[in-house]
Amino acid sequence: MKRTAVTFGDPNGISPEITIKALNFLDLPYEKVVLITNDNILRYYREKHNLSLEKNYEIIEIPYKYEDIKPGIESEEAGEFAFKSLVKACNLAINGEINAIVTSPVSKNSLKLAGHNYSGQTEILEQYLAKSSQHAEMLFVCDNFSVMLLTRHISVKDVPNYVNKKNIIAKIENLNNALINQLDIKFPKIAICGLNPHCGENGMFGSEELTEIIPAVKELNLKGINIEGPFPADSLFQRCIDDNKYNCYVAIYHDQGLIPVKLTQCNNCVNVTIGLDILRTSPAHGTAFDIAGQNIADADSMINAIKFACEKA
Amino acid sequence: MKRTAVTFGDPNGISPEITIKALNFLDLPYEKVVLITNDNILRYYREKHNLSLEKNYEIIEIPYKYEDIKPGIESEEAGEFAFKSLVKACNLAINGEINAIVTSPVSKNSLKLAGHNYSGQTEILEQYLAKSSQHAEMLFVCDNFSVMLLTRHISVKDVPNYVNKKNIIAKIENLNNALINQLDIKFPKIAICGLNPHCGENGMFGSEELTEIIPAVKELNLKGINIEGPFPADSLFQRCIDDNKYNCYVAIYHDQGLIPVKLTQCNNCVNVTIGLDILRTSPAHGTAFDIAGQNIADADSMINAIKFACEKA
Repeated sequence: MKRTAVTFGDPNGISPEITIKALNFLDLPYEKVVLITNDNILRYYREKHNLSLEKNYEIIEIPYKYEDIKPGIESEEAGEFAFKSLVKACNLAINGEINAIVTSPVSKNSLKLAGHNYSGQTEILEQYLAKSSQHAEMLFVCDNFSVMLLTRHISVKDVPNYVNKKNIIAKIENLNNALINQLDIKFPKIAICGLNPHCGENGMFGSEELTEIIPAVKELNLKGINIEGPFPADSLFQRCIDDNKYNCYVAIYHDQGLIPVKLTQCNNCVNVTIGLDILRTSPAHGTAFDIAGQNIADADSMINAIKFACEKA
Repeated sequence: MKRTAVTFGDPNGISPEITIKALNFLDLPYEKVVLITNDNILRYYREKHNLSLEKNYEIIEIPYKYEDIKPGIESEEAGEFAFKSLVKACNLAINGEINAIVTSPVSKNSLKLAGHNYSGQTEILEQYLAKSSQHAEMLFVCDNFSVMLLTRHISVKDVPNYVNKKNIIAKIENLNNALINQLDIKFPKIAICGLNPHCGENGMFGSEELTEIIPAVKELNLKGINIEGPFPADSLFQRCIDDNKYNCYVAIYHDQGLIPVKLTQCNNCVNVTIGLDILRTSPAHGTAFDIAGQNIADADSMINAIKFACEKA
């Protein structure tokens, strides 16, 4: 039996709300999912917003007090709950009880307040579940294309240090495998962005394209991987997304990949982590503290995340 | 009499083609424009593509041989023509003969082959025409918003060095003045992006938001400038563009601003240079060597550039 664990993320964000809404919308078979949550959180949404789970899915409880539910507030308690929920999901995966994990958004600051210093859930999952040979990578899967980030939650100042040939080759080999095996694309066509504006214009402003990215692309081509580029990022997405020219775009850094994803596909997009022992998906947005506890959050991205995990796992 | 000079850019790019097409489409009064071009280039397009100027605008000739027209090829001759055309336009401006300059795209590599080492036309104009107190800035003016780049053609590695409070304050004061005086926006509302992903998440990955951008915004607010942020760039554009929440977005670096501009407004967008003694506009694309000499280039952005200059100058 293929099962998916769904975490409820940060209790003070929109996370529980979108998770309940998504589960109700999808109406999955009982035995398909296991929820990692807390009865006080479910009670809060039932009492405050008349928002109840419409099916009796299996629930694994992580402790959380009713009075600690404070929408929009970062807190140690919320961070600890989010962290324990994720670790529980990892342990279910390690024990072979689930095939996929869907994670609802967490607050990095709340994690930090609880003493868990990670730049995101992906880094926690990487520590528990990454295949020995490779790192976890974030792949944003949209309707007809996907975007992988070469670097994630690091400062722009640090980005150039990660743009090296060996790193690029390893990550794109993993990507190509995941596109074939996890996304069922037989012959992936990949495009990679340059780091610098206009790809550095032949070294005039930045040389990473010449010294690292172009040599990496050449070596990947020799290995039989269909990747083209580097292309200037500002025109690549505009030129190619509508024409379905590539299955996947590799962005060198966070905003370079996520600005086009969010502008074109915000709610249709699923964040898929590749390179783990099991499939992991999550919505492509954060805790949205500014609208938490108001029952106005849009569950579309979470719906897609759960649907994708249940279908592909 | 208000007059606009129009340069023909790189003779081997799509530049002459889009300029002729735009001028024919706009059908401006004879006396409104002066063209900086070459009769051999006009003859080439007339003979090869049946594409002729439909009005006898005043023409200032810059030498260029017929046999040096090689669509798609970077060359010293093309770079020299492009450079001389731009300097001619600057001199017309300095002599008070024109109020605005529209520049057709040039190739930085061809400029370099001709010994002119600039990262773009804006930098040449800056040298000839910048007001003593300020630098030239690129503002991409779209249908219902505009985007200013805090840094332009520099490597990503160098970007963080330019993110300092003093620099930000000076550039945004200029921007605010230009929005009021050149774009006729009475009470501009400006938003600024963070440099780092998620604005660095309170210093977890990158601190320029905390040490430079936030203090600059506070000081600008005290000066009466309506600017908000920094906001994470990946969601800012997606959240706000459709709602017309701001008149202008300040991007910290080239791709952060131009990915959203090109994805949402490619052909409706005009590149306006602010901080010069006169108005300068240009289309928001390059020489497009890959489709040069084929008579298939889209002149929309050039049409908007010429129209904007003639209306606002």
